Amino acid sequence: MIVLGIDPGTAITGWGVVREEADGRPTLVDCGTIQTAASMPLSQRLRHIFQKVTNLVERYGPETVAVEEVFFSKNVRTAMTVSQARGVILLAAALANRPVHEYTPLQVKQAISGYGGADKAQVQQMTALLLGLDTVPTPDDAADAIAVAVCHLHSAHLQSLLAEQT
Amino acid sequence: MIVLGIDPGTAITGWGVVREEADGRPTLVDCGTIQTAASMPLSQRLRHIFQKVTNLVERYGPETVAVEEVFFSKNVRTAMTVSQARGVILLAAALANRPVHEYTPLQVKQAISGYGGADKAQVQQMTALLLGLDTVPTPDDAADAIAVAVCHLHSAHLQSLLAEQT
Repeated sequence: MIVLGIDPGTAITGWGVVREEADGRPTLVDCGTIQTAASMPLSQRLRHIFQKVTNLVERYGPETVAVEEVFFSKNVRTAMTVSQARGVILLAAALANRPVHEYTPLQVKQAISGYGGADKAQVQQMTALLLGLDTVPTPDDAADAIAVAVCHLHSAHLQSLLAEQT
Repeated sequence: MIVLGIDPGTAITGWGVVREEADGRPTLVDCGTIQTAASMPLSQRLRHIFQKVTNLVERYGPETVAVEEVFFSKNVRTAMTVSQARGVILLAAALANRPVHEYTPLQVKQAISGYGGADKAQVQQMTALLLGLDTVPTPDDAADAIAVAVCHLHSAHLQSLLAEQT
């Protein structure tokens, strides 16, 4: 199973592709960021993000796209800007017929570090450990996207364990 | 000149196509709404909105798409939901190589009624008068979208008048 994790943003969208090996171990396939210049018209920035995400789905063939839910920021403008980017990312997944799973920052923290109180750096270090990486992937946006993808793998496991029990 | 005006929303997106006649008079070509059920997954709702807007651009061939800016709602969740729909609408315009113009509710009011204090019903009645319609188009979402399109025509006129003066 391959998962494309995405941490949406208009200026920087982080992405990470994680594969679950036959033994259940998650490994990092690739990661990076999609960046757009503030000087571009908004519609062009959204087009760039949409096309890059569409390309990622084509290139890596993930079964699923896992997207971080927008944090309920006190800054409404930021929340609205991120939501526009999020809209075109969800669309790219839908047009490629990939199911989308959404996780809040708290769900990501809990899935990876076992409790919601972990700080961002701890979550990133745990993610690196889980993936057998020597260093935390950079930049932060890519690391966050990888964490969302790993979060989805954990959730999917939990779901199937629960399904077996019933 | 043909303008497609859009009032974005996840549940209901209003749209209105307005044509400027040779004598400068605006006329209504068509209007309607794009509706999605709350029971659909968000990514599917966004796909539906995206495809309908893409179809509208193909069918009516507007030179420009005018979109109402999201109102800075006190309800952050609403603002974020509308922003996601707005993202895929701006994307549909960009992929069709149509320039996008954005107008705040205040700008729409001012362009149509001459002052920002007009209420929603007054703006809709003024819009109907400007377009030579006997009744206000329904539903509200379609009427609002038409108002945005008329607002754009007014703004475009003002811009060209200002350009001639300099």
